[in-house]
Amino acid sequence: MAHIDLGVDETELPGIRGPLRFRPETGGPLLELVEVLLRGPHPLSPGERELIAAYVSGRNECTYCCSAHSAYAAAQLDEGMTLVDQVRADPDSAPISAKLRALLRIAGAVQVSGREVTSEMVAAARAEGATDLEIHDTVLIAAAFCMFNRYVDGLGTQPAADPLWYAQASDRIVNIGYRQVV
Amino acid sequence: MAHIDLGVDETELPGIRGPLRFRPETGGPLLELVEVLLRGPHPLSPGERELIAAYVSGRNECTYCCSAHSAYAAAQLDEGMTLVDQVRADPDSAPISAKLRALLRIAGAVQVSGREVTSEMVAAARAEGATDLEIHDTVLIAAAFCMFNRYVDGLGTQPAADPLWYAQASDRIVNIGYRQVV
Repeated sequence: MAHIDLGVDETELPGIRGPLRFRPETGGPLLELVEVLLRGPHPLSPGERELIAAYVSGRNECTYCCSAHSAYAAAQLDEGMTLVDQVRADPDSAPISAKLRALLRIAGAVQVSGREVTSEMVAAARAEGATDLEIHDTVLIAAAFCMFNRYVDGLGTQPAADPLWYAQASDRIVNIGYRQVV
Repeated sequence: MAHIDLGVDETELPGIRGPLRFRPETGGPLLELVEVLLRGPHPLSPGERELIAAYVSGRNECTYCCSAHSAYAAAQLDEGMTLVDQVRADPDSAPISAKLRALLRIAGAVQVSGREVTSEMVAAARAEGATDLEIHDTVLIAAAFCMFNRYVDGLGTQPAADPLWYAQASDRIVNIGYRQVV
């Protein structure tokens, strides 16, 4: 049970979905933000951006967000959950592009504190071809999941009881997107 | 200088303002979120909500956000910057309501991790009269500033060079709000 009465059946709407419905005035901009960041037109694919979200959520130990965005990443990457697990375990040895690896280092720094990001990390990403937009969005995706993870866990919401829930949710995310999620 | 070329004069648009203008697709929902959270109709006054934002930003050592939201809080509280400084130094001894004190404890926990919020903290806030909406919004304000602080510092933006900038900015925030900020 969440810390507050969300007025929803938490088995149907686990994790962030209860709070998004509880307070639609904030749910709207939160969903718009995540739609732009993870699914808008971009040089990084949706699968790569979901990977950044899953990686940060794992480091924040947010079970719901990490499970959800791992599923959404897996559904949109050729290598599926195998690659997600490799990245979550160790981005340095995972079979990803050098650019994505450099961006994940920035995301990992942001997860600790914005002040952990160094000019050297940014230069390294740029040397692998990352643009200002990709660096900006990596920082904001990582920062945004530091918010979402705290929102979900700070309200004491529950993750999905059935792991299959995440795979079903990913169908909707991939085909319809985030805006209509609740 | 920020880590990326924001395309703005950072002395005119310090802190988050450069990134908000650099990427209006994400700037729009971010400003809508903060407008609802800090200035929308609410049982907590705008000054009290800005106080939560300043407190969390101070704990995250984000100079720009802490300076800005301290100024916006001071401008909207009868006790001004004296109270902001007292709350930032020690909410437990600051002359605030027992309800706001209990909510600041929840915000302080969220700043560390959503998982730090306990049922006891929530029960204590409720015992002082906090509603589900106030508890929800306290968690989300604290979580959102964990994002904003990382966004501002992760991109290496600069705080305002002149402390007077924050007082001038607070006039606009108080009178016009966040939506038109850049």
